[in-house]
Amino acid sequence: MTDIAVCPGSFDPVTLGHLDVIQRAATRFEQVVVACLRNIGKSPLLEPDERIDLLRAATAHLGNVRTEAFDGLLVDFCRAHGATTIVKGLRAASDFENELKMAQMNAALGDVETLFMATNPRYSYLSSSLVKEVARFHGDIGAFVPEVVSRRLRERGDHGS
Amino acid sequence: MTDIAVCPGSFDPVTLGHLDVIQRAATRFEQVVVACLRNIGKSPLLEPDERIDLLRAATAHLGNVRTEAFDGLLVDFCRAHGATTIVKGLRAASDFENELKMAQMNAALGDVETLFMATNPRYSYLSSSLVKEVARFHGDIGAFVPEVVSRRLRERGDHGS
Amino acid sequence: MTDIAVCPGSFDPVTLGHLDVIQRAATRFEQVVVACLRNIGKSPLLEPDERIDLLRAATAHLGNVRTEAFDGLLVDFCRAHGATTIVKGLRAASDFENELKMAQMNAALGDVETLFMATNPRYSYLSSSLVKEVARFHGDIGAFVPEVVSRRLRERGDHGS
Amino acid sequence: MTDIAVCPGSFDPVTLGHLDVIQRAATRFEQVVVACLRNIGKSPLLEPDERIDLLRAATAHLGNVRTEAFDGLLVDFCRAHGATTIVKGLRAASDFENELKMAQMNAALGDVETLFMATNPRYSYLSSSLVKEVARFHGDIGAFVPEVVSRRLRERGDHGS
Amino acid sequence: MTDIAVCPGSFDPVTLGHLDVIQRAATRFEQVVVACLRNIGKSPLLEPDERIDLLRAATAHLGNVRTEAFDGLLVDFCRAHGATTIVKGLRAASDFENELKMAQMNAALGDVETLFMATNPRYSYLSSSLVKEVARFHGDIGAFVPEVVSRRLRERGDHGS
Amino acid sequence: MTDIAVCPGSFDPVTLGHLDVIQRAATRFEQVVVACLRNIGKSPLLEPDERIDLLRAATAHLGNVRTEAFDGLLVDFCRAHGATTIVKGLRAASDFENELKMAQMNAALGDVETLFMATNPRYSYLSSSLVKEVARFHGDIGAFVPEVVSRRLRERGDHGS
Repeated sequence: MTDIAVCPGSFDPVTLGHLDVIQRAATRFEQVVVACLRNIGKSPLLEPDERIDLLRAATAHLGNVRTEAFDGLLVDFCRAHGATTIVKGLRAASDFENELKMAQMNAALGDVETLFMATNPRYSYLSSSLVKEVARFHGDIGAFVPEVVSRRLRERGDHGS
Repeated sequence: MTDIAVCPGSFDPVTLGHLDVIQRAATRFEQVVVACLRNIGKSPLLEPDERIDLLRAATAHLGNVRTEAFDGLLVDFCRAHGATTIVKGLRAASDFENELKMAQMNAALGDVETLFMATNPRYSYLSSSLVKEVARFHGDIGAFVPEVVSRRLRERGDHGS
Repeated sequence: MTDIAVCPGSFDPVTLGHLDVIQRAATRFEQVVVACLRNIGKSPLLEPDERIDLLRAATAHLGNVRTEAFDGLLVDFCRAHGATTIVKGLRAASDFENELKMAQMNAALGDVETLFMATNPRYSYLSSSLVKEVARFHGDIGAFVPEVVSRRLRERGDHGS
Repeated sequence: MTDIAVCPGSFDPVTLGHLDVIQRAATRFEQVVVACLRNIGKSPLLEPDERIDLLRAATAHLGNVRTEAFDGLLVDFCRAHGATTIVKGLRAASDFENELKMAQMNAALGDVETLFMATNPRYSYLSSSLVKEVARFHGDIGAFVPEVVSRRLRERGDHGS
Repeated sequence: MTDIAVCPGSFDPVTLGHLDVIQRAATRFEQVVVACLRNIGKSPLLEPDERIDLLRAATAHLGNVRTEAFDGLLVDFCRAHGATTIVKGLRAASDFENELKMAQMNAALGDVETLFMATNPRYSYLSSSLVKEVARFHGDIGAFVPEVVSRRLRERGDHGS
Repeated sequence: MTDIAVCPGSFDPVTLGHLDVIQRAATRFEQVVVACLRNIGKSPLLEPDERIDLLRAATAHLGNVRTEAFDGLLVDFCRAHGATTIVKGLRAASDFENELKMAQMNAALGDVETLFMATNPRYSYLSSSLVKEVARFHGDIGAFVPEVVSRRLRERGDHGS
């Protein structure tokens, strides 16, 4: 099988759901490149460098995973990193419909295959946007994100408990 | 990555949509085992042996693909064939919801990962049940199934044109 | 625009939701042919002749609507009646996914266009299978079906109130 | 608030997902009546009396829950038990669409309110039909059903591990 | 059952669909607190105070309903008002998927139960965003909102008819 | 049947999927009016005049199709053009849910019927927003839009290949 998989996302912030998909990809591919989208529009919680930093900290235990910033088209990112496979987690039917269109367009644009994994049921309700909202109002996000993320946000004062 | 993928189904009959998924899996895994469910309940078009036979004919050009009959639990089939990966195509949101449950249950039962591929848009509307109905009423299924299948059904007289 | 529309279904029994779609089609097409599927498998409430009979009674006030029995492929029925348009009501996303596949297959088989209408919200929860179950247990189906249908079922004793 | 809630189902067999919904209903209503459908068609795993028996054993620790057999219309069952509320769990969008129609029809038939609870994520992939299939092929269902159910099925020999 | 239910929303403006859910909650709970989100981002039609004002006018006939402004996390609002139940209406499968995630997250954050009610079919197509657009272009919203709302918008000149 | 159909949209830019629906509508209605929404909010790729211009160029071969700018309520646009029918393409279940609500609201507002067509499977994954993103990053959009659109964007320098 192809040796390099790309796991793309905004990761604002990285959740336990994301980490679960990255870890499972890492057991099946020689290398995993996490592609962290720099420009994510609408009021981010974290700056790009901070999101990348946290991803690197959260995946430090995975020897074959590295994180890179990404702008532009995902098929170009894949080509630049020698990858022909994208790996994504799916939580719900509505996720699926958008992802299906993107996967079919990426196949049309660049001969890239997208492989979807079912989210671990324990994390099926997690989304960065919900976690972000909880963090903004100083709710406890410890159950939703890697430990390094909740500690960082607590230090920053975004997260009071 | 794991070297053996299992592509399960009823294949009554195998369609161009199934074949597309099998072919794409075959480019990414060392071996692909097509798992053809023997007992498929409600009024099959084809007997198990005929379904398997047609799968073998339709995949004869793929050196690393073989087809086996299958009964019982898919996780047991995977274990028996040394596979830890199931590959399935997804066409629509409703497919996804059933497949998600099955993938999560198979993960709970046997530590098997299910990887989903987006159906090629050209085949997104194909399903064995629709093709079967067309074949039963002697409609022309040439655009929906591998050539070997439409020829066989024509010889059998299930398919008149 | 094409002058003949086909409204297909099982109509076991015809509901106010079906009738609403047929009436709206009748204001937009010169002729509407209601195609009543004869063979509907799983324990029908009504025999084909009775279903057709009730459809004819329920649409008697619509001068440009007629009902015909139908077996086999819908595209063949359309061809036989000189129709190139199928009209169907849609209630919910899950309806849509099946109907989309059928519409795309019918377009591939016979150059027939399927036009979908949004169900009147008042009837959005009606389905023959729910109505059938209510009728079987002698619930009052007066709010769900044309008057001629509830009267007939009451006379038959399927419907006690 | 109304004091009696009805939790309907086939329970073939009762799963941890069902039990979770029944328990949560029991903390919010004075009484919960579990309505176990007798006639469930397609090849049941368990006879009605056995399903009811297992429900009673699995809910024995809940003082305000009782289980009754049920045939006919759910609104009639509710009326007979003095209940105006139905409580159901929802796992996925496809569940929701069918349940929405039933809830709206039950409201039309009998002025009964249906309240839906989100399934606990841990049980989101559980369905009786998947569990039944695993049990039939002697897979280990211990993680999916109350302990009393897996023991009973093991004793019966439906479940070998 | 718990005595206080919270009905959250943006209510920009309150529609007949919202009012239907609030009324049904009011027949089943001792008290209902309508939680009106202050900060609703993208170009509101009405200011927070005006939205709250209209909610109070539209629910004035319901003795056990009161409306409060709300910012921050809904679980904190519930705690502050002694409520452990959230009541929401569901119209469509896509509503459901978002609501499911929120319900599961709120359960994780604060031991709050979300109960969903099926929208009355008559109001199933109503959404504040569609109503807002109609009001902006001086369409007649009389069939979609409580009388007090259409009068107020007419006086303001947002709504010409 | 009614003689004039309205095909509304933002068309930023017009895709082959849009053009397919317009062409199919043009074979069934005497006249088709493409209603191009002027004000489309969030960072458009093309100015309204440019979008209209490209629509006119892309439909120049269709004698009974014309394009007009549109602001305000679609039902008012229909009335102004003597149309009682809206024609829209549907790609996926999530499209459908929004479109269903809009169709039901437009029926309530102005006695306008919406007819939905299934997207041609080849174009099922196309959306203006995906195409826009590809164009912004100079990806090749030749397979997704009419030739006149890709040429124009190339001349503008939005599209490098």
